[in-house]
Parts: sequence; structure tokens; C-alpha cells
Amino acid sequence: MTIAKIDITGIGNAIVDVIAHATDQMLQDLDLAKGAMTLIDAERAAAIYAAMGPAIECSGGSAANTIAGLASLGGRGAFIGKVCRDQLGTVFRHDIRALGATFDTLPAKGSTATARCLIFVTPDAQRTMLTYLGACVELAPDDIDEDLIASSRITYLEGYLWDPPKAKEAFIKAATLAHRAGRKVSLSLSDSFCVDRHRDDFLDLVSRHVDILFANEQEIISLYRADDLDEALQNVRGHCEVVALTRSEKGSIIVAGDDVHVLDAEPVSRVTDTTGAGDAYAAGFLYGLTQGRGPADCGRMGGICAAEVISHFGARPEISLADIVGERMA
Amino acid sequence: MTIAKIDITGIGNAIVDVIAHATDQMLQDLDLAKGAMTLIDAERAAAIYAAMGPAIECSGGSAANTIAGLASLGGRGAFIGKVCRDQLGTVFRHDIRALGATFDTLPAKGSTATARCLIFVTPDAQRTMLTYLGACVELAPDDIDEDLIASSRITYLEGYLWDPPKAKEAFIKAATLAHRAGRKVSLSLSDSFCVDRHRDDFLDLVSRHVDILFANEQEIISLYRADDLDEALQNVRGHCEVVALTRSEKGSIIVAGDDVHVLDAEPVSRVTDTTGAGDAYAAGFLYGLTQGRGPADCGRMGGICAAEVISHFGARPEISLADIVGERMA
Repeated sequence: MTIAKIDITGIGNAIVDVIAHATDQMLQDLDLAKGAMTLIDAERAAAIYAAMGPAIECSGGSAANTIAGLASLGGRGAFIGKVCRDQLGTVFRHDIRALGATFDTLPAKGSTATARCLIFVTPDAQRTMLTYLGACVELAPDDIDEDLIASSRITYLEGYLWDPPKAKEAFIKAATLAHRAGRKVSLSLSDSFCVDRHRDDFLDLVSRHVDILFANEQEIISLYRADDLDEALQNVRGHCEVVALTRSEKGSIIVAGDDVHVLDAEPVSRVTDTTGAGDAYAAGFLYGLTQGRGPADCGRMGGICAAEVISHFGARPEISLADIVGERMA
Repeated sequence: MTIAKIDITGIGNAIVDVIAHATDQMLQDLDLAKGAMTLIDAERAAAIYAAMGPAIECSGGSAANTIAGLASLGGRGAFIGKVCRDQLGTVFRHDIRALGATFDTLPAKGSTATARCLIFVTPDAQRTMLTYLGACVELAPDDIDEDLIASSRITYLEGYLWDPPKAKEAFIKAATLAHRAGRKVSLSLSDSFCVDRHRDDFLDLVSRHVDILFANEQEIISLYRADDLDEALQNVRGHCEVVALTRSEKGSIIVAGDDVHVLDAEPVSRVTDTTGAGDAYAAGFLYGLTQGRGPADCGRMGGICAAEVISHFGARPEISLADIVGERMA
């Protein structure tokens, strides 16, 4: 096994977020599933955008947010995902590279636009997401850079990547390459509806390919059709080396072999927008792992990163995560 | 004179802002004039963007920000400006219409991209702006909707509009139409370098076409090449009905005929990004005028709007200005 040049390579949907304030009434009027990520086509994206308030655009995408967080922590990150050669694709590429991450996936050949996620943030700071996958559906096994995967300590995959049809092959290819190179594979279950759509595939993935699993309570319960969290945990603990369960304001639970660590949430002065909380948690947790930290420290680092990201609009850190983690973990 | 259907029609550069945190060292390394608005070509825009940190995109443009502020106050606004039929043009059109403002200017026919303003916000909350005018240079007299101008209480023009070559004709046409319909014309001097570039034109405009003038201290001093603010004020007071001078943390001075009102700045808990402060001030001030308020009230309303906009990233209000002004003026 050669020395890893990259801490984490993330593979995911390359998405630009379009974020606006919204009321619960607006969600009802538009018939949106509050708190979930719903896939929409181009036509519905246009209709919903027309009904949306004034918005800001910023780079998003679950695994891409995690790589952005890793870079902000001082880690060496890379991203694989598909944009179009359009203005939003340029924005996406700029933002992830500006953080110091490697992003060399070729843009899609067609004219299908770069993916957008319309995000409605309600006064309770909850986010409701509608994703038009656009150019993301072009991601294919050929986009997996074998050398990159082999030289990354961890390959991190978002569950959302199971939605575009060809991406799952890319997904399996990357996991296989990573393990062949003696590296670790990590997966986020992303969303309970996403788990519903792909349960059998995810069960197979978790039991055969995943070393480090991220999920929230609903997602892990949905995965095993369990009655409660305990039952779900009993199911998963034999399959993965490490399972990190995020529980919003209740903190997180880390299951690592026989050890279970129950962690409180990190303090936040004001929760503004929960978009990207799980992605930031994964960034802090995985960065901790690459730094040789134990599971409880990794969980704390994840919680600190999540606390920064939910304190403002947008899914990526506004200030240096390395500084904040350095202060709080001192 | 028919009844006005629109409170204010703004004419300006239709710009999407690209906003990032920056250090003073970065400004020095890139040789940028701190605090100013500098025009750049497409090539330099690409080079500076490549050196810029991760950014957020949001609709901007001086007069457009003022119309956005007016809409947030509950006023009826319209905007005239030129975008391209590209993704950022779609963003610009969406955002201003989402606030309830009318925006029907036809997009530019060519493929020149929608204008962008690269904004570096330093830790002192000062903004340094680099504008690539793109499709804005296509704005021409034919874009001035005569019925719209005739039915607007106030036509508001940004000084920046003097930079694209054909826009000045559009500018004069609009001012002439407004006065012919018995309406008021307002101008913001925008930027002291902009005043330097177009001093003679601006002097002519102010003495012949402008009823309500907005400027900061440097701009008005530059306009009259005066030694100090008093001298500049003596020069301008005979020319315009109302002059509103914004002075950042020192508040503002309103000169209306023989009356001079000196107003303190409105309190702000934390100044985050001063982009759009003057635009928001103009929104509050002009909305006050259309509501029949006196000059001192108008100045306060302007100050309250500016205080909201500088409390966060981005040049447009994040929360309802009508609510804030309602509370503070109660």
C-alpha cells in the first residue's frame, strides 16, 4: 500500500443550491414534503422556482459539501461528480477548487444543465429540498479515477448517488477499487426516502462494501425496517467497523466495534438553516479518523463542524473549520 | 397627470453579485482598489474569479437593489436593465420578480454574458467590487418603456449606468420622459471613481435633470472638486430639491430647500458586509417620499433599511423591510 496523497475522495451529485426563505404555508401550497429531498424534473423545477422567493445560489451537493468541509479543516480532499459546461457548472467547479480540493471530473457532453437543488428554509431552520439532477445523470464508471481512489485514505459516497441510473456502477467500482488498494469506504444514507427507494441495494452495500456508515435515526430505522433505533443498531453493528448516527439536537451515537459513544450536540447560538448539517458532521468525523483520532473525538469534531454550518444560510462553512475545531478541542 | 401605477422605476446595470470573504492581503496581492467599484473586462474577471475564495451568488446591481428594497417595504417597483439569456440572467430576473417588482426589459440579443460583480468582503465589512458589465452594455434608449416611466412617481437612475456607452442616452431619455409626465427624477452618484470618470456629464445632469440626489461625502466633494463637504453642499443645494448625503456610521444629512437635517446612523448589532448600504438607504428614503413623509422621516427610513442590509452578506434585504421600518418608526 502506497502512501495516501488524498485524505478523502468524495463521490456525489454536483449540485448548486438555490436557497430561499419560505413559510410552512408555502410548502403546503406547493405540496412539498417538509424536511425531505424530493427529485423533480426540469419542468417541475422551473415551476417551483417561479413560485420561490428571492434566492441566493451557492455550491452544494452532499459529498461535495463534505469535501468542502474537509478542506476547511485542513484536509486534502478530492471530488468526483458531473457538471455541465454552463454558468452554474463554472460556479460549482470554482467553489470546490477555491477551497483547495481537487476536482477534475470532465463536464457532461450534452447540454443538460448543471444540477440544482431548490431549498426552502422555514422559520424553524428546517430545510426542504427539491433536486433537479440535470447533468448528474451522466456520471458513469469511466469518471472514477482509479489512481485517485487508490491514493485516498477514504472514499466517501453519498446515498443520493443511487438516484441517477449509471452512478451506482461508478459507486461500486469506486468501492471495489478502494478496498483493493487497502483503503476504507464510507457511505452516508443521505435521506430516508432515498433509503426507501434503494433499500435492497443499500443493504447489500452496507454489508459488503462499507466500513464507515453515516445515517440519522430515520434512515437507519428505514434501512432495516426496524421498530426502533436499538433494533436498527443491532442489525448494523456487525456489518460496519464504525457507524455514526446523527440525531440533530440530541447529538450523535458512535458505534465502533463493541464500543458505543453517546455524544451531546455541540452548542449553537442560533440555528438558522440546517442544510448541510449531516455533510459537515461527516467532514469533521472523517477528518478526525484520518488524523488518528478515536471515535468519540471524531464525533465531537463532526458535531462542531455541523454547529458552524447550521448557524448560517448555506451548506458550506463560512469560516475556517480548522480554527473552530482547534479552539473547541483544545 | 394620470395616477401613478408605480412608485419607483429604477434604471441600472443588471448584475449578479459573486461575494466572497477576503483578507486585506488578498486585495493587495490582486492589486485591487479597496472600497471602490472598478470596471474589468471578461479576461480579468476570469483571472480574478480564479483567485477568489468560495463564493455565493445573489442578484445585485445598485438601482436593482433599491427596487428590491422598495418591494420589501411594500412599494410598487419596476426595473429596467439588460441581462443575457443565460443562467445568471435567469437568476436576476427571478429574484427581482419574486419580490413583486416589474422587470420586462428584453434580454440582450448577443451571447455576451449577464454582468457579474466580484465582491471581496474584508473582515472590516468593507466591500471591494470588480464589475464585468457583460450584457449591460446593450442597454439602449429603445429599452426605456415610455408608459412605465410616465406612470412612475419617481424614476431612479444609478450613476454607474454612465459607464456602458449607450446607456447614457437611455438615461437622458428616461429623465426627459419623466419630467414631461410631471414626475420626479432621482440619481445616485454611485462611486467617487465613477464621478471622476463622468464629472462633466454628472454636473450637467444634476443641474438640469435631477430632483432628488443621493451621494456620499467623497462623491459629492469629487463632483464639485470641493475642498470639503460644506463647500460641496453649497454648490449642490440650488440644483436639486432634495439632496441626501450618506455618511456611513456618521448617519446622513438631508438638504431640502433651506432645511438641513442631520441624522444619526441607525443601530446595527454587527456590521457584516456593507455592500448595498447606499442602495438600501435610497430605497427607504424614496419609499418615504412616495408615502408623503417629510425629509427627516425619509432619512430615518433610509437608515433603517441600510442597517438591515449591512447586517448580513449580500446587498438585498433578508427579512421584510416593511416589518422593520414599521417597528422602528412606530
